Amino acid sequence: MTSRLKDNLCSKNNLELKNNQKKKVVVIGGGTGVFTVLTGLKKYGYKLSAIVSMADDGGSSGILREEFGILPPGDIRRALIALSNTDNKILSDLFNYRFKEGKGLKGHSFGNLFLTVLQRLTGSFQEAVKEAAKILNTKGEIIPVTLSSCRLFAKLENNQIIKGEKNIDIPKHNGLIKIKKVWLKPKVKANIEAIKAIQNADAIILGPGDLFTSIIPNLLVENIKKTIRKSPAKKIYICNLVTKFGETDAFKASDFLKTIEKYLGKNILDYFIVNVAKPKKSVFKRYRLEKSKIVEIDEKELLKTKKIKLIKADLLRENSSLLRHNPHKLSKLINQLI
Amino acid sequence: MTSRLKDNLCSKNNLELKNNQKKKVVVIGGGTGVFTVLTGLKKYGYKLSAIVSMADDGGSSGILREEFGILPPGDIRRALIALSNTDNKILSDLFNYRFKEGKGLKGHSFGNLFLTVLQRLTGSFQEAVKEAAKILNTKGEIIPVTLSSCRLFAKLENNQIIKGEKNIDIPKHNGLIKIKKVWLKPKVKANIEAIKAIQNADAIILGPGDLFTSIIPNLLVENIKKTIRKSPAKKIYICNLVTKFGETDAFKASDFLKTIEKYLGKNILDYFIVNVAKPKKSVFKRYRLEKSKIVEIDEKELLKTKKIKLIKADLLRENSSLLRHNPHKLSKLINQLI
Repeated sequence: MTSRLKDNLCSKNNLELKNNQKKKVVVIGGGTGVFTVLTGLKKYGYKLSAIVSMADDGGSSGILREEFGILPPGDIRRALIALSNTDNKILSDLFNYRFKEGKGLKGHSFGNLFLTVLQRLTGSFQEAVKEAAKILNTKGEIIPVTLSSCRLFAKLENNQIIKGEKNIDIPKHNGLIKIKKVWLKPKVKANIEAIKAIQNADAIILGPGDLFTSIIPNLLVENIKKTIRKSPAKKIYICNLVTKFGETDAFKASDFLKTIEKYLGKNILDYFIVNVAKPKKSVFKRYRLEKSKIVEIDEKELLKTKKIKLIKADLLRENSSLLRHNPHKLSKLINQLI
Repeated sequence: MTSRLKDNLCSKNNLELKNNQKKKVVVIGGGTGVFTVLTGLKKYGYKLSAIVSMADDGGSSGILREEFGILPPGDIRRALIALSNTDNKILSDLFNYRFKEGKGLKGHSFGNLFLTVLQRLTGSFQEAVKEAAKILNTKGEIIPVTLSSCRLFAKLENNQIIKGEKNIDIPKHNGLIKIKKVWLKPKVKANIEAIKAIQNADAIILGPGDLFTSIIPNLLVENIKKTIRKSPAKKIYICNLVTKFGETDAFKASDFLKTIEKYLGKNILDYFIVNVAKPKKSVFKRYRLEKSKIVEIDEKELLKTKKIKLIKADLLRENSSLLRHNPHKLSKLINQLI
């Protein structure tokens, strides 16, 4: 490559980064899905905001929630690590560390403890998240969707009611019975910072992630749905790669879309991103044990929804024993759309 | 004050700081005593090293030592906080935080957990301490006296043997019976960085602090005593303000000095600093409950040791409910001696 061509390409990239700095991108979700999207997008120079679900009540988060009366730190921690940009890599490794030993410590995430102590020191969960973001020098802000404590409930098709995110997530119910409805109890108000981020967004990205336990809990918080609908932002929903037993068993791509539209409203989304690359057979075994299946892209059904553009692409992470989105393929695609 | 006079004073201070930068000061001890000395001295611009005892086996440190097989982090943590110079005060507050709630977390120091995780991530206790020092931007280095695990043992005058620092510190024995001898088991080698710091020191400061459980355990580590004796540094021992039941019950100033000389050797120390200010009566009550008494300065006995200069000064912390050294008075005095 000639050096002039190189310079031209460099300045083109710099220009793109500069333009992106003006773009406000909001990612809404929880769990590892948000982690993937943020990890990819942070390289594009956007003004990023991650709005994170506060319905988690399992594992280390669940224990801290109960014993310290704080909001669940787990999903916030994942977003912090994803956006971390510290020179000192050990800080993000610290946030990622999970104790494998120690009575009472085993199973706890050190990042969760870090956020718990910051909450005690600052007196507020929101301040704790901001302090952690400062320490990790995050490229973007992390916003709890609500600052009020609430629980996720689900009603199944057989009218059985499941209490608590963890009992839906790791199903205590017969996973073949579909979820009819989910709601938060008590009803909680949105964090004003989440509302502002959505109002000012140029793009809003939902998913991927556990549909009923990571994505929809955000839409159940008062005013979130309404604010997304009113926002002039481009709205993108990223479909999951695999179904989840007890939550989205046997779901096709159109079922994911219809469910999101049930909670968000119809004709709101602009793009629906699905993966069409076929994974290697070797990764299936693990998913068969978990009773998960590749999400079928039922294109005919999807094309009935005229407002939404269906975006099909190879989005798979290669050389992984897990079926996951490749953050770079995903963010490259998103960058083209917004 | 005229501005020229002000300038002169400023440049005098700057000059002093500049000269101090060349001076290497080593503080040896453990517990809150080291904390006090380091807090005061860090303002004087010396090249500071804190050599810290590794004999602690009580409390949060004791649990982590047992469950994670790491060296005890408690004394290291105190030195880190004392020398911390981070712009972000919340980081040193985090290191100082102790859990008041949570099954399995209550009583743990967050700083100790921080060091435990750093040890797991770096694979070495020494590296963990260095990473923590980097995060806290410490003014000076913190050096574990040994990198090998050991226990402190004591033999009383009645030949009873006490195993473990915590059982000597919070006496399980009759506190009126004197300690005849203390030793480490197994015998452990000194951290090479401790040896180097002592060899290159311009001044070495011992104490204040629990004589048998914080100061002497450093001198019991192989080669430490010998290296201090050979070092051309000025050697200063700071006497405790109060006696400690079970450890230094009824000790006078000369008893402290004689005991240190028993473990360090005679005619090694250059200065012996004692406080001569009288504390308010209101602080005595708490100490009576703990069976502690003000250390009597038995000057006649002290003056028999001709090599050592006795330095008497008002070193008390004012407006405190505890009998503690004032770090600024203490460091000002030390600065005059070295």
